[in-house]
Amino acid sequence: MQTERSSAAVPVPIAPPVRLLMGPGPSNVPPSVLEAMAKPVIGHLDPAFLAIMDEVQAMVRQVFRTKNRFALPISGTGSAGMESCFANLLEPGDMAIVGVNGLFGMRMAEVAARYGANVIRVEAPWGMIIPDHVMVEAIRLHRPKVVALVHAETSTGVLQPVEAIARAAAESGALTILDCVTSLGGCPVEIDGWGIDAAYSATQKCLSCPPGLSPVTFSERAIESVRSRKTTVPVWYFDVTLLAQYWGSDRVYHHTAPISMIYALHEALRLALEEGLEVRFQRHRRNHEALIAGLAAMGMELASEEGHRLQMLNAVRVPVGIDEAAVRRRLLSEHGIEIGAGLGPLRGTIWRVGLMGASSSRENVLTFLEAFGSALREQGMAATGDAREAALAEYGRS
Amino acid sequence: MQTERSSAAVPVPIAPPVRLLMGPGPSNVPPSVLEAMAKPVIGHLDPAFLAIMDEVQAMVRQVFRTKNRFALPISGTGSAGMESCFANLLEPGDMAIVGVNGLFGMRMAEVAARYGANVIRVEAPWGMIIPDHVMVEAIRLHRPKVVALVHAETSTGVLQPVEAIARAAAESGALTILDCVTSLGGCPVEIDGWGIDAAYSATQKCLSCPPGLSPVTFSERAIESVRSRKTTVPVWYFDVTLLAQYWGSDRVYHHTAPISMIYALHEALRLALEEGLEVRFQRHRRNHEALIAGLAAMGMELASEEGHRLQMLNAVRVPVGIDEAAVRRRLLSEHGIEIGAGLGPLRGTIWRVGLMGASSSRENVLTFLEAFGSALREQGMAATGDAREAALAEYGRS
Repeated sequence: MQTERSSAAVPVPIAPPVRLLMGPGPSNVPPSVLEAMAKPVIGHLDPAFLAIMDEVQAMVRQVFRTKNRFALPISGTGSAGMESCFANLLEPGDMAIVGVNGLFGMRMAEVAARYGANVIRVEAPWGMIIPDHVMVEAIRLHRPKVVALVHAETSTGVLQPVEAIARAAAESGALTILDCVTSLGGCPVEIDGWGIDAAYSATQKCLSCPPGLSPVTFSERAIESVRSRKTTVPVWYFDVTLLAQYWGSDRVYHHTAPISMIYALHEALRLALEEGLEVRFQRHRRNHEALIAGLAAMGMELASEEGHRLQMLNAVRVPVGIDEAAVRRRLLSEHGIEIGAGLGPLRGTIWRVGLMGASSSRENVLTFLEAFGSALREQGMAATGDAREAALAEYGRS
Repeated sequence: MQTERSSAAVPVPIAPPVRLLMGPGPSNVPPSVLEAMAKPVIGHLDPAFLAIMDEVQAMVRQVFRTKNRFALPISGTGSAGMESCFANLLEPGDMAIVGVNGLFGMRMAEVAARYGANVIRVEAPWGMIIPDHVMVEAIRLHRPKVVALVHAETSTGVLQPVEAIARAAAESGALTILDCVTSLGGCPVEIDGWGIDAAYSATQKCLSCPPGLSPVTFSERAIESVRSRKTTVPVWYFDVTLLAQYWGSDRVYHHTAPISMIYALHEALRLALEEGLEVRFQRHRRNHEALIAGLAAMGMELASEEGHRLQMLNAVRVPVGIDEAAVRRRLLSEHGIEIGAGLGPLRGTIWRVGLMGASSSRENVLTFLEAFGSALREQGMAATGDAREAALAEYGRS
């Protein structure tokens, strides 16, 4: 009887529903990535695992377009990658200029401040880019140690121009940190070409791997800056010098690598490179354009600055009189489609519709437009025009 | 042609070998855990995922034997759990007493120091416990804010007695942090019964889940201590106040949870509770006893203090004249068995033979003893006695 009682308290096995993931991430994970993840676990110092690590590092370099020696997945989600950049490159009292035009810029500023940095926020309204000249002037005026920018601001759907700012930072001797969480694998990211010193991403966006790892790269200049610190890196878990000893030829045990997640990332990176980065970017572009053509036909607008829109995340303005949460709930319950809500000041005023990685497909665009139209009509909106036709016309054009 | 050339640079899919994992972790992962991990990814705010999170928290409480509200998996490996305990409970200048009798005690001391604590190391030789009275005297003398201990020292195979020390810490107003990385799910861990304020573990040891998460729990007293900090928690990613807002009823987005790993942990915890913790501990005990009976028949000794030996990790002394690395290599290449090397001062002098979680079975004990004997004979050692018989006799006894 005791056995029965104690097993009654044990939950049944999970049975998660199948969703069409069209929010701000995670995106849908291809079957071969799930299969790779479920391969037998081996030890973190097994020669067979060390070979997989080497291939992962080489592929991380390829997607970041860098020759940096330090290029590896941090054992945590994208935010862990952010922490590792700031924890290693900032010491108390250092000055950091952070571009803030959305939630993830705010988070960078907060993380930098927690490490004791003197943080100067260069702000722009949510939904707009931070103009080059404003950042460049701030850099020339303050001569910071670190300049930090969000490449693809997932909270607003804005793509931040990077090159001129990174150049000004390099000229003034500053290190540039770039948040590539949502951009990597979905649009051009040129770490070496743009002169970026540290960048971090996440696996669950345009790489279509489950969340849990953060690809990170540091330039030699950034590594040199870590070496010449006056104080210890405060977080042992994110100390890049120790991480480099495990991932490099020394193979010194640091922490137990998340084996299965690294299997999954290996397959996700493989799929991205097999498709070809340019082809993949083009696919993201076409699906984005078809989506916004369809949305336009329904009378919907984006909340992000024209000419600077992400092709993997669309901030769609909620029309007056529509209950945005009810639309999301209906999409999820009736159509199995997840889209995202607005964050911070955009809460209730936008939906975030993602077309990331494997989720960025013609089929998903058409499925979404139909379901979205139906959910809006359910809310009393008389949808104008034919979204499907407009999207198909856009596909025909490109 | 370009396609061919670029795809030539893409690695082939991984094909990791099947290993018998009998090192210091990871342990072998049951098929149903791998299957759960490969279920479709859903969003981190999906109602279906929130329900899974609730069940995981309830099961984390059960395996830790605690009623603490804060009990959840940190999104990183065991070392990330260690960081989250020290990052939240220590402020610069705080005093911490750390028991150091192996690598993981050393690491706790280092991590505590990186957060600016004034660290007092109470040391004991590797392979021995830290005597209660030494810790208790240090606590009464120094009145620290934090007392930290490793419950199961994976580098030496020693089980540290905890109760008297935790009681003395509580009496002096200190918070006790306990490293349960290797003990949780393999031998009794009584967070509430022993009065532990913060504890962390890892998934890849006696829970037999892939590495990547760290179950952590904080008592109300520990949470209260975080609330009354004078300084911000330096690491945003590990800030328990923010984590509690996502895992609690507020559901405030913090970072994207590692969905698939949490699926895996759900199933691993389920299996542990379905087996029953007492039955599971008993299984670990019997297999450990059979293993050491077999080893004794071969003339082999353990390097850990008698009466304080881990039942999930055995530090086996390398006999004079035997090349320990050659034995490990042969076990791996000829028999597909992974065991661990010694760390730090024990490098080259011990093997670490794990019997953790699913790896702790009668079949594995017998398979290992046979392969180990063969590898030792290959090294010129004339193995004395019959290890298999001795192990079977031990199974017969219990």
